[in-house]
Amino acid sequence: MSDLSNVRAMMFDVFGTVVDWRGTIAREGRILGEKHGIDADWEAFADAWRGGYGPSMDRVRKGELGWTKIDDLHRMILDGLVDEYGLGGLDASAMDHLNRVWHRLDPWPDSVGGLQRLRSRYVIATLSNGNVSLLTNMAKHAGLPWDCILSAELARHYKPDPETYLAAAEFLSEPPENVMMVAAHKGDLKAAARVGFKTGFVQRPHEHHPDRPNSLEPEDWMDVWGRDFHDIADKL
Amino acid sequence: MSDLSNVRAMMFDVFGTVVDWRGTIAREGRILGEKHGIDADWEAFADAWRGGYGPSMDRVRKGELGWTKIDDLHRMILDGLVDEYGLGGLDASAMDHLNRVWHRLDPWPDSVGGLQRLRSRYVIATLSNGNVSLLTNMAKHAGLPWDCILSAELARHYKPDPETYLAAAEFLSEPPENVMMVAAHKGDLKAAARVGFKTGFVQRPHEHHPDRPNSLEPEDWMDVWGRDFHDIADKL
Repeated sequence: MSDLSNVRAMMFDVFGTVVDWRGTIAREGRILGEKHGIDADWEAFADAWRGGYGPSMDRVRKGELGWTKIDDLHRMILDGLVDEYGLGGLDASAMDHLNRVWHRLDPWPDSVGGLQRLRSRYVIATLSNGNVSLLTNMAKHAGLPWDCILSAELARHYKPDPETYLAAAEFLSEPPENVMMVAAHKGDLKAAARVGFKTGFVQRPHEHHPDRPNSLEPEDWMDVWGRDFHDIADKL
Repeated sequence: MSDLSNVRAMMFDVFGTVVDWRGTIAREGRILGEKHGIDADWEAFADAWRGGYGPSMDRVRKGELGWTKIDDLHRMILDGLVDEYGLGGLDASAMDHLNRVWHRLDPWPDSVGGLQRLRSRYVIATLSNGNVSLLTNMAKHAGLPWDCILSAELARHYKPDPETYLAAAEFLSEPPENVMMVAAHKGDLKAAARVGFKTGFVQRPHEHHPDRPNSLEPEDWMDVWGRDFHDIADKL
């Protein structure tokens, strides 16, 4: 493990790293389906919704769309899934509520306890593409003990653009090398490392569909690798 | 009291409203003075340091200085007080530590408990001219249970510029009328009201020098007035 004695702050990816988007959306979908008589594959619905995420941020990145909050990108993607998943009978209020399921995602079992341990030694902050209000509401819902909510929204650049990481470090008044990015996604960590952050990989084997190839093993370039947040806290 | 049923978020001024800058700085000053043999009036020192705050933000507002964090403005003011208060013997590390006393300000006795009560019903956030790292470190130091750290730094406009309030409401995805600004300073509240915020005044009779005239009484335009945060929680 490289020298991590100068790390003062840890910034966490959120969707998939801290909270279980797939499990929460599928569960809320099943409840919604029972209430409204919609028979759908809710895991596939969750995957399709999440699948629109990268392409919709690319539209912002390329300038096709002006700066747009993730809440609004989520809604555009959701509107495109209405026919395929039989959501046409939902009224405006039910659609709004469904879109805000991203504010109500449940944490992985170790998230709250692991973050509490890390918080005693570091400043812990989100660094997510989710907008500030989404992350704030999610923290209240899930009991996530963040010291600070940082978001791509503050830089008006989505990860993995370098501006997102650099702005976040500047808000915490820390040079990049004093910050560790923690994520279950190697692309996020590699982008953070390119601007000088330390990196912590957390394994989240249940984030995606079980058949999807998912690279979870430690690699040389990672500063720390953990089975979960407790394992990362043990190793630091 | 006006209709406050649509209020979803409360944003708090911090210096003087939530924490006791004068008492904390005077106490740390006395300890510093004993250690280094500096004989100064530390209450007067606190008042002089705070007295430079408005004028230094005005320099940013007028464009004499580019965007500058409060940490750096505090340091410029402090450097100007070295001779008058006999601080010339402090080394760089001691001066840095002293400048960061603003990260270590202590809360008023009701602050933590009152905020915890309000947090159970509202999203509670800072809305301070203090920079993000200052507010984040202060929250850890003082146990302030913020849902979200919002700062003038995010808008690159200092209060009472309207942009500061409007950006903060936008980050919480709330229209201004769903947000209550809480402060011990009428100018801050009036500026918030001009962009549509609700207002909550909290009386902080010990913020300033006892001889300084300080207007603490309820006025018609305030949406709520409280002796402290518990009183505000009782009234909402």
